[in-house]
Amino acid sequence: MERIISVLVENKFGVLARVAGLFSARGYNIESLSVAPTLDPTTSMITIVTTGEDRIVEQIIKQLNKVIEVLKVTDLTETSFLDRETALIKINAKPEHRDEAMRIAEIFRAKIVDSSSATYTIEVTGDVDKVEALINMLKPLGIKDLVRTGRIAISREAARLPSRRDIQALKA
Amino acid sequence: MERIISVLVENKFGVLARVAGLFSARGYNIESLSVAPTLDPTTSMITIVTTGEDRIVEQIIKQLNKVIEVLKVTDLTETSFLDRETALIKINAKPEHRDEAMRIAEIFRAKIVDSSSATYTIEVTGDVDKVEALINMLKPLGIKDLVRTGRIAISREAARLPSRRDIQALKA
Repeated sequence: MERIISVLVENKFGVLARVAGLFSARGYNIESLSVAPTLDPTTSMITIVTTGEDRIVEQIIKQLNKVIEVLKVTDLTETSFLDRETALIKINAKPEHRDEAMRIAEIFRAKIVDSSSATYTIEVTGDVDKVEALINMLKPLGIKDLVRTGRIAISREAARLPSRRDIQALKA
Repeated sequence: MERIISVLVENKFGVLARVAGLFSARGYNIESLSVAPTLDPTTSMITIVTTGEDRIVEQIIKQLNKVIEVLKVTDLTETSFLDRETALIKINAKPEHRDEAMRIAEIFRAKIVDSSSATYTIEVTGDVDKVEALINMLKPLGIKDLVRTGRIAISREAARLPSRRDIQALKA
């Protein structure tokens, strides 16, 4: 099962390596990871997307909580959340492909943010399905370069569904 | 000096921990880092933003090139490049603040992507100056949650992704 985990950490040397290392030590691949500062410049938020057995993810979350620079771990997966990713996609822009590139960009509310005689660079932001659908639509034109941020996620506080853990706590 | 470095890697356990570790081993902080798959699912692109002495960054780039799973290191800093970051910002939306929140979002071409009785969640994509300016404008309204992707960057030259053949050659 896919999991999205937010890890609030202190900005200290080696924290990211340690966090990433907890996953790889268990043979657990990270699909995407983003880390950037929060409002408080002494802390950063790491967003990790991973796929795998619940049991192992639970172990990793326990280990994360033991890392001294880890301030808070939130498994967003079982809550209601919004997620977004941004991609920059450089495509071939042969004269006969330009109209089609413009049409596709418009349909996906993507922006052409740069162009050269031979290429267009397209910026798109959305959930993972939207970003991947756009990439698939652009493939026939020829993708020359692609870079993605990985996903970030934020809880939908108000409409929060009870997590499995909440339900277990309620049952206890 | 700020540096933006792209590192194309094989998707193997522990690569991210090793790459992050090369920075921390030299007491070198990573300001932001994003890693996500490329078109070829056996490889991922890591984008790292860091600040510091050129001499040390040069050393780190040399070390990165020695990591077996690292296929290509590109220091975008001294080329012409586009960079983008996305943030999700949850703010207080007291009735008396809503008009102002809407105005600010419009000015920054940001989107209100979720709302509850007490909050708005705003999505913004742009260069780092835009994202930080928006965050600063929203601070007086009260920021309740903030998550950023970190920056990704793409060269403005007609660069291209390595083909599978290129990757095999790089792996050899």
